[in-house]
Amino acid sequence: MNKFFSVKDITDLNTLVKEAIALKKAPLQNQHLGKGKTIGLVFLNSSLRTRLSTQKAAQNLGLHTIILNANQEAWTWEFEDGAIMNGNTIEHVKDAANVLSQYCDIIGIRCFAGLTNKEEDVSEKVYSLFEKYAKVPLVSLESATLHPFQSLADCITIAEHLPINKKPKVVLSWAPHIKPIPHAVGNSFAQWMQKADYDFVITHPEGYELDPQFTGGVTIEYNQEKALENADFVYVKNWSSFKNYGKLIPVEEDWLLTNEKLKGSNNAKIMHCLPVRRNVEISDEVLDSENALVYQQANNRTYAAQIVLQKILENHE
Amino acid sequence: MNKFFSVKDITDLNTLVKEAIALKKAPLQNQHLGKGKTIGLVFLNSSLRTRLSTQKAAQNLGLHTIILNANQEAWTWEFEDGAIMNGNTIEHVKDAANVLSQYCDIIGIRCFAGLTNKEEDVSEKVYSLFEKYAKVPLVSLESATLHPFQSLADCITIAEHLPINKKPKVVLSWAPHIKPIPHAVGNSFAQWMQKADYDFVITHPEGYELDPQFTGGVTIEYNQEKALENADFVYVKNWSSFKNYGKLIPVEEDWLLTNEKLKGSNNAKIMHCLPVRRNVEISDEVLDSENALVYQQANNRTYAAQIVLQKILENHE
Amino acid sequence: MNKFFSVKDITDLNTLVKEAIALKKAPLQNQHLGKGKTIGLVFLNSSLRTRLSTQKAAQNLGLHTIILNANQEAWTWEFEDGAIMNGNTIEHVKDAANVLSQYCDIIGIRCFAGLTNKEEDVSEKVYSLFEKYAKVPLVSLESATLHPFQSLADCITIAEHLPINKKPKVVLSWAPHIKPIPHAVGNSFAQWMQKADYDFVITHPEGYELDPQFTGGVTIEYNQEKALENADFVYVKNWSSFKNYGKLIPVEEDWLLTNEKLKGSNNAKIMHCLPVRRNVEISDEVLDSENALVYQQANNRTYAAQIVLQKILENHE
Repeated sequence: MNKFFSVKDITDLNTLVKEAIALKKAPLQNQHLGKGKTIGLVFLNSSLRTRLSTQKAAQNLGLHTIILNANQEAWTWEFEDGAIMNGNTIEHVKDAANVLSQYCDIIGIRCFAGLTNKEEDVSEKVYSLFEKYAKVPLVSLESATLHPFQSLADCITIAEHLPINKKPKVVLSWAPHIKPIPHAVGNSFAQWMQKADYDFVITHPEGYELDPQFTGGVTIEYNQEKALENADFVYVKNWSSFKNYGKLIPVEEDWLLTNEKLKGSNNAKIMHCLPVRRNVEISDEVLDSENALVYQQANNRTYAAQIVLQKILENHE
Repeated sequence: MNKFFSVKDITDLNTLVKEAIALKKAPLQNQHLGKGKTIGLVFLNSSLRTRLSTQKAAQNLGLHTIILNANQEAWTWEFEDGAIMNGNTIEHVKDAANVLSQYCDIIGIRCFAGLTNKEEDVSEKVYSLFEKYAKVPLVSLESATLHPFQSLADCITIAEHLPINKKPKVVLSWAPHIKPIPHAVGNSFAQWMQKADYDFVITHPEGYELDPQFTGGVTIEYNQEKALENADFVYVKNWSSFKNYGKLIPVEEDWLLTNEKLKGSNNAKIMHCLPVRRNVEISDEVLDSENALVYQQANNRTYAAQIVLQKILENHE
Repeated sequence: MNKFFSVKDITDLNTLVKEAIALKKAPLQNQHLGKGKTIGLVFLNSSLRTRLSTQKAAQNLGLHTIILNANQEAWTWEFEDGAIMNGNTIEHVKDAANVLSQYCDIIGIRCFAGLTNKEEDVSEKVYSLFEKYAKVPLVSLESATLHPFQSLADCITIAEHLPINKKPKVVLSWAPHIKPIPHAVGNSFAQWMQKADYDFVITHPEGYELDPQFTGGVTIEYNQEKALENADFVYVKNWSSFKNYGKLIPVEEDWLLTNEKLKGSNNAKIMHCLPVRRNVEISDEVLDSENALVYQQANNRTYAAQIVLQKILENHE
């Protein structure tokens, strides 16, 4: 493996998940791979799970980690090629990416969607420019449209809780929120669920359709109750409108996930990437029940990152 | 040891202090204890000594350290159970504590008193909630009411400078400040001095009594000059009013500690946890004299943290 | 070596550069030197290259690194001796430097010129005070007047690209900028070029003369075109006026470096410390050409820092 931006960068998901699970029993066995090497983790946005789990994965692999909170600690970046830089931006992403490549053997970058310019977000302008100019393997810590480490961790978590002798039904259920949120987690989960070949359904209010490039062949069910019927896993997540880009469209029904709504499910396991707005996206009773897998997902972020970083390091030994 | 919140978490202070002092001669002897393990240091407030000394202690023990400036780098926390999170808070402390426990073998957290809600501060609302939900040993990097690593470092420092053949007289002397400051250092020092069984006196203007749950049996002397008579150690520290919670009560006399005021002392050693407002709390002449132990206290923060972390690691081997 | 503030702290530049270049082939060979030791990197200003390259150098030497973004993470510093600290400053630099020395075996500090008080900047008030009170070797990560790690990296980069059988002509060429910028890089480069004994010329508009204490014997050529004739290396950098301290003086000609301007040069290599304002200081065509050495300079920051830290560690074994 030489980069990690989306599900397209992996070949055999099933094997990858099994390898990640195997790491849990011997997380320090590949410390030699990272010896004398450095991963740079660049954050253009806030982070808790990604910040900690990727550091932890790097430590397990013997890699040194350098964290850069780019905007607060370094210089504001320019993203326009050919810009006459006489404004507020201080360093061109071209130069930043090249320079970071001088010090790091692998770079991870987090660059959320801005939600103001659909074309820029859909084209992954920031991530693509950084990747274009970086000289070392790049991994996404969540970009404008995708969050692959989260999705891999989600696949690991599902694999650890599969129903017996049955293809699981997995439902991605839109949730309310008080402000516009990017589509990356939803898009990404849809991609990986298709790769995993589960019985996969997305449910959301009309107008909240995700970008079809990620949800192409997936069943969309606008009736949440119907979608949740017989579900084995319910992945809850908010996102803003894609059509009416980055906007909140009023929704009449209450899409908050509660135990009441889960009655028709197959005693479904509940998933969320966190942070979660409690009692807005999911009720406390659901989140605090034994069926919630949210902390297992968080824990699996470490092993998702570790197996990917390991494969990149093995490829560059 | 399984946690470190207050003096109540230790049994034999005298032995603990001796073990900490012994670490200075061989600080790296227990590097195996931390191998492959991680301590997470979570800061909800500013820090210099705590940030560096705890990192240093962790490094000495072979622990990896992950720093999280929670508010700037991650997400704003919600502290109300059952909250409908439709406001400015993004992640519930319940989830944050659980998630951090997925990546860390020990967590340290700094959460100062807000000084606006007495009940919340006295009940250690933030620390208690975090501890309730954390799944790994928790150590306090200063909470609303106590600062145990500071107090242990203070005990080490006093032990290294004890007068010969005499129980020392230790005075905690209130100092002026320009803004309301929490009570944690004062409360904590009072607790540990009682455990140490020294001749201990607190002096402050009327109205600045500390919470009696920490100063229960201690002599309060409102006359600073009288309190300082024959003192061997003078610990200077400001705090705001506890009765009139978090307020500055006007004080007529000048409580600034000067050489003049120390004339009746037994050539007293001067202590302060730092940062100190020079010439407001203590005069330059005192701070820059040979009797000042403030940098030794800062240095001992490393060994205070190291002996505690070592005992926690030994307990979880 | 016991400190690193300016070119005056080194003896044999030629040998130092050769040793730095040799490190590239075996960067991890001196990991024993840093074992169990800690370098503290204190930033009062933003940093990308310095932050990463010094960490990388420290890692290569087996040193632990503690980063402190002093203003954001710790306490605002007071710089006046004898100050009655009843204002916005919380900790005196005297105490901060002493305390940091308790935890670190080497300290690096970045403290840019404020450009408002010429006397304070010229006297290196902040750096000098920190150095006065620090108890361990101090290295500059750029101070008010100098940037020695950058200059050493620049010397390494030039040495790697020397013309054959010829003393190179090196030109420091002032560039436009939209706001007042400190003189440290220009001053420092002038110092090191004199030590290197190259054919060295500075070109800038009238009124932009650097402090003569650093450029004493250097040829100043106000005509940029003439200065660039037969240049082998052109180092581009903006700085504000020194005479009219910290101000932008209007300049009629366009000092932007373009290919057109380089026509009379000896196919000159182009250097800049970065970050660079593209198409304001240097045109894209120049920066993106094969003659640009800016990323090599960035890379050499690691080895400049590493050879200096190595010598300091060797001196304290």
